Amino acid sequence: MTVGIVGLGLMGGSLSLAMRDKYDELHILGYDHNDKHTIEALELGLVDKIADTLEELSSVDVLFLSVPVDGIVSILSQLEGILRKDITIIDLGSTKERIVASIPKSIRANFVASHPMTGTEKFGPTAAIDDLYKGKVVVLCDTEDSGELQLSLTKEIFANIGMKIFYMDAKEHDRHAAFISHMPHAISYALANSVMEQENTKAILALAGGGFRDMSRIAKSSPNMWEDVFRQNRDNLLEAIESFAKELNSCKQLIEDGNWDELHKWMSSANSLHNII
Amino acid sequence: MTVGIVGLGLMGGSLSLAMRDKYDELHILGYDHNDKHTIEALELGLVDKIADTLEELSSVDVLFLSVPVDGIVSILSQLEGILRKDITIIDLGSTKERIVASIPKSIRANFVASHPMTGTEKFGPTAAIDDLYKGKVVVLCDTEDSGELQLSLTKEIFANIGMKIFYMDAKEHDRHAAFISHMPHAISYALANSVMEQENTKAILALAGGGFRDMSRIAKSSPNMWEDVFRQNRDNLLEAIESFAKELNSCKQLIEDGNWDELHKWMSSANSLHNII
Repeated sequence: MTVGIVGLGLMGGSLSLAMRDKYDELHILGYDHNDKHTIEALELGLVDKIADTLEELSSVDVLFLSVPVDGIVSILSQLEGILRKDITIIDLGSTKERIVASIPKSIRANFVASHPMTGTEKFGPTAAIDDLYKGKVVVLCDTEDSGELQLSLTKEIFANIGMKIFYMDAKEHDRHAAFISHMPHAISYALANSVMEQENTKAILALAGGGFRDMSRIAKSSPNMWEDVFRQNRDNLLEAIESFAKELNSCKQLIEDGNWDELHKWMSSANSLHNII
Repeated sequence: MTVGIVGLGLMGGSLSLAMRDKYDELHILGYDHNDKHTIEALELGLVDKIADTLEELSSVDVLFLSVPVDGIVSILSQLEGILRKDITIIDLGSTKERIVASIPKSIRANFVASHPMTGTEKFGPTAAIDDLYKGKVVVLCDTEDSGELQLSLTKEIFANIGMKIFYMDAKEHDRHAAFISHMPHAISYALANSVMEQENTKAILALAGGGFRDMSRIAKSSPNMWEDVFRQNRDNLLEAIESFAKELNSCKQLIEDGNWDELHKWMSSANSLHNII
């Protein structure tokens, strides 16, 4: 199988490692606008060859788009008319509605919109790890518009690298992703910034235990990636932030009022998350 | 050495495991108002014997207080006049100002106020793990009021179980702890509650990746413990929550205004946390 990967960062690089582990005959062509990344990806063996233009990727069996979500929209507009007829295009973007809406009609059946619910706070080819996808969930969206061949190949690849496949429409995906992923990133960035604007940042951070480390880990995530996500999922994200802010405000109010019994109940209700995940 | 542990949960139980690993001759007496906990602690070998009253702990070499912080205050008032003269009392509470203020004068020199910056979201004797303290920070507060013998023994024990010792006054500790620990717990509880009040909680949570799991982990923490902490550190906590809410609101405003350049800068500024921890 020949594979093209547009975007040789954490997601694209880790995908290469995962697929190399499962497929014997694999020829991987990489494309990235960042020269440092293309050199690193070659050195790390993430790709066999670097393509200088998108045209050079036109005859691969599967083309993965693993760039920030605005980049996916932009690349989609450049793909029309240059690809082999039965190509499978799979994007790995964290938003889906805008991306699905921007697929040119002529290649709609070639496209499978996907969102692997995985990642780390690190980025670039050196961040690639071989088990990023293993045991994780991938959401496939609006699959009724994908071709049979393309959907089947996509499912085979994700299953082979150990992923659990969920199906959802793009609108529903974006709303859910705002709550489970995008809003938590906003919170983590805000938490990091609120501590760093204190006078004694270093003295405070010296006391960091596991709780703070876990809560601030994703505040180290790529602004290039997340600026795009926040823009594309603006309305859902704002709604999720408001829902969270309302809860935090309830907590604050209970503390201000010294309403400890209600605070205890509020905490216990959060505890019940334990029964679900 | 004979050791008394009041409170046989995660902190007290893990302390027993860590000390047993480092001290050959150790006799551990446990005390807990919860009968289920005393039975579990005996079964797990966390303690050699259960004391039925605080008086029975009066002749140990070191007495650890590892109950919720309001419990520590309450127990301190019951210890006066019943303890051997050179006993060392070490509390493991997450707040320090109120506790230090409540130490009876007659036993002030016996007391070393400490806060190990470690924990997990689990609680009770079965949550005890042998490496909870290893490599973690412990803050000792207002040590100028502790006896030389007591301070020296405390430092020896914490160093032996692998902890890094920091010194701070109780007031400063409580302010720092509000930002690095207490406020992040409020955020995590609020995050869990905001997702759980959505219509499709289960569908949303099915998509949880590492980010959400990390951010919501401490929302599973004990309400008994955290209600006390929030009450005792009320003012600092409210200030920390406000500081965080201000940052989150800036983020929200930038998204509403479509001010993506500033949002990118705001995210990049959070990234710099990476250079510190």
